[in-house]
Amino acid sequence: MTEVVELARAARVAARQLAVLDRAHKDAALHAMADALADAADDVLTANASDVARARESGTSEALIDRLSLSQARIDSMVVGLRSLASLPDPVGEVVRGWQLANGVHIDQVRVPLGVIGIIYEARPNVTADAAGICLKSGNASLLRGSSSAVNSNRAIVKALRAGLDSAGLPQDSVALVEGGHETTTEMMQARGLIDVLIPRGGAGLINAVVTGSQVPVIETGTGNCHLFVDVAADQQMALGIILNAKTQRPSVCNALETLLVHRGVADEFVPVAVDALTNAGVTLHGDDASRQIDPRITPATADEYDAEYLSLDLAVKVVDNLDAALAHIRDHTTGHSETIITNDAVAQRRFVNEVDAAAVLVNASSRFVDGGEFGFGAEIGISTQKTHARGPMALPEMTSTKYVVTGSGQVRA
Amino acid sequence: MTEVVELARAARVAARQLAVLDRAHKDAALHAMADALADAADDVLTANASDVARARESGTSEALIDRLSLSQARIDSMVVGLRSLASLPDPVGEVVRGWQLANGVHIDQVRVPLGVIGIIYEARPNVTADAAGICLKSGNASLLRGSSSAVNSNRAIVKALRAGLDSAGLPQDSVALVEGGHETTTEMMQARGLIDVLIPRGGAGLINAVVTGSQVPVIETGTGNCHLFVDVAADQQMALGIILNAKTQRPSVCNALETLLVHRGVADEFVPVAVDALTNAGVTLHGDDASRQIDPRITPATADEYDAEYLSLDLAVKVVDNLDAALAHIRDHTTGHSETIITNDAVAQRRFVNEVDAAAVLVNASSRFVDGGEFGFGAEIGISTQKTHARGPMALPEMTSTKYVVTGSGQVRA
Repeated sequence: MTEVVELARAARVAARQLAVLDRAHKDAALHAMADALADAADDVLTANASDVARARESGTSEALIDRLSLSQARIDSMVVGLRSLASLPDPVGEVVRGWQLANGVHIDQVRVPLGVIGIIYEARPNVTADAAGICLKSGNASLLRGSSSAVNSNRAIVKALRAGLDSAGLPQDSVALVEGGHETTTEMMQARGLIDVLIPRGGAGLINAVVTGSQVPVIETGTGNCHLFVDVAADQQMALGIILNAKTQRPSVCNALETLLVHRGVADEFVPVAVDALTNAGVTLHGDDASRQIDPRITPATADEYDAEYLSLDLAVKVVDNLDAALAHIRDHTTGHSETIITNDAVAQRRFVNEVDAAAVLVNASSRFVDGGEFGFGAEIGISTQKTHARGPMALPEMTSTKYVVTGSGQVRA
Repeated sequence: MTEVVELARAARVAARQLAVLDRAHKDAALHAMADALADAADDVLTANASDVARARESGTSEALIDRLSLSQARIDSMVVGLRSLASLPDPVGEVVRGWQLANGVHIDQVRVPLGVIGIIYEARPNVTADAAGICLKSGNASLLRGSSSAVNSNRAIVKALRAGLDSAGLPQDSVALVEGGHETTTEMMQARGLIDVLIPRGGAGLINAVVTGSQVPVIETGTGNCHLFVDVAADQQMALGIILNAKTQRPSVCNALETLLVHRGVADEFVPVAVDALTNAGVTLHGDDASRQIDPRITPATADEYDAEYLSLDLAVKVVDNLDAALAHIRDHTTGHSETIITNDAVAQRRFVNEVDAAAVLVNASSRFVDGGEFGFGAEIGISTQKTHARGPMALPEMTSTKYVVTGSGQVRA
């Protein structure tokens, strides 16, 4: 029996207890986990310092070092995150719908936990506390498979969370850290029947490996090659404000803008203004011949740049003949995350909304709003780019399944 | 490019058209498909006769021959099924929820089709028309991979359905038959990005191969090792009626009863009465030592019989010490389909409902009610035994995804 199987079996036992727990006990446990994490701040920071030192020694990029690094402020934010989960409604037990058959049999569809959730993620150790908290609130046990580069940080965090669980009288195995190399990811993908759902969070390579290799059902939190189409009927000032926000407000996230499509009818007028504003904001533009003929400050884009998720201050640009061409480009290059149209034309809006196949379609608003927090969900485990189970920002209800409860007084089928 | 890839690409093009189609056009197409199938009845029966003859020659069992065989009545029932789909509400376009952010951005979560759905199924050719109709009504294209034993029947049915689509002005590629051997199943499982969801319908072997091998998301319509627990506080007459119904009303289906658990406190009284009634109804009982000591008419059960889905007039029996033992047995042997308790004890009811992890949990009612038709859904593609996406009877809404439509007037994220 591998360590993963052992952890998953223990988590299943814990999950049975979590599944029938009332909200008050779960919320008390979340506060106890928050208290324990706050108390362990020094230990967590020490452990994190050793992870960071090790990463520096092995020549890790500063961007990754930043993701890996914890501070008192980041720990405070994890603590606040756990406490705020306690203030959210419990998704478990919600009656999604209920009805009565002609024969008097009553049926309720009730939300229940998924069971054991495996989270496979990269260097950010704050995911450890966030994911454990969201799983617990939704009645699920969690197996947390963080990056080995963050193993000391994750150990210290999980130790604190488990101490909190214990002090609240809940099984420590409700939250467990999976350590080890890539073989543990494979073992999690093969743990069908022991792990109910796997959620990979990270880069395209990790997510692709999990969605194609797993025997356990996966919820794909995919990448975002997000497009914005400036229609011929766009308010160009509005377009500019939204493009700047979507590209520059936080370029490293999945709902940031990556490709700008401009209707040929407004390209001559709009492209130079956009290049001015974006260049001033530090953005490098990569475009097709048509856009470069309008503004030579645009550097040439290679074909595969239209499939790139830059996650940086870079933006692909393309001039398209019309709405149909924009829809066709998006269809060929979308990752199904968030796609935007800027237009005042009601027919164009409606066609874009209906014909673009993505988790979120935006009209005259920044794609940066596609986020559990911004949507008002209060907590988010990630943004699903798949079509089954959950699509878009995933909050507590998306971490549940349902069960039909059928109650009769002796009815049989005729 | 394999034939499966070719069919899937054509289906994707059709699916784009279906996704934006209004209800009236879909309903008209369903009626046209029904008309065409009714008109083709003779061709379908001739084709089916050749399949049946071939199956007989190769020594196929009579049970399978029965599943494979069509009659005018079965064709009529497919035709009625297509017409009745037209009378059901369109799940596509339903606003699941909608709200407004503080900054005035409006968000709607709207039902949209999944896209291209692959159905992999066994010998029953009526599934061909049913699945095609349910997919079409929910705005999805379908790739139907039936059994090669039914290939002539399926060809004739799909030919009629496609003619109906054509006469209604819809793309024929909305419905396609996948022919060929096992390699086509593998190709479908690898068609990630071309097929959106695979739904296997059939025996445990088929379903297991698909759920463990597919890179395309799968909805598992699993097997039903359904248990019924007669509690010490059961109304024994009620228990008997429900057991007889659940076991004998249609033994070959997944919501039929397979294992009877009897509380030790009533076993001496109840087991002989149950054996009388069940034996009279032609049921063979297979039990543990405790049950056989009470009634020697029960034959010995092998250990693996408690995991069997008999699908026949056989029933496993076990005497259990109490509710906890019943829950533990179910936990170890459930396939997560439908589990029943017969009791008048409110605490036992509540514990059973909360602690049993299955798509449906029944109190004092027959598990034969766990069915889309009985639930009042009007159509069913199968019963999901997985926890993600959909669990229990899957009707039209379960054949959809959702999309967030975010509408603003220039809002950006602060």
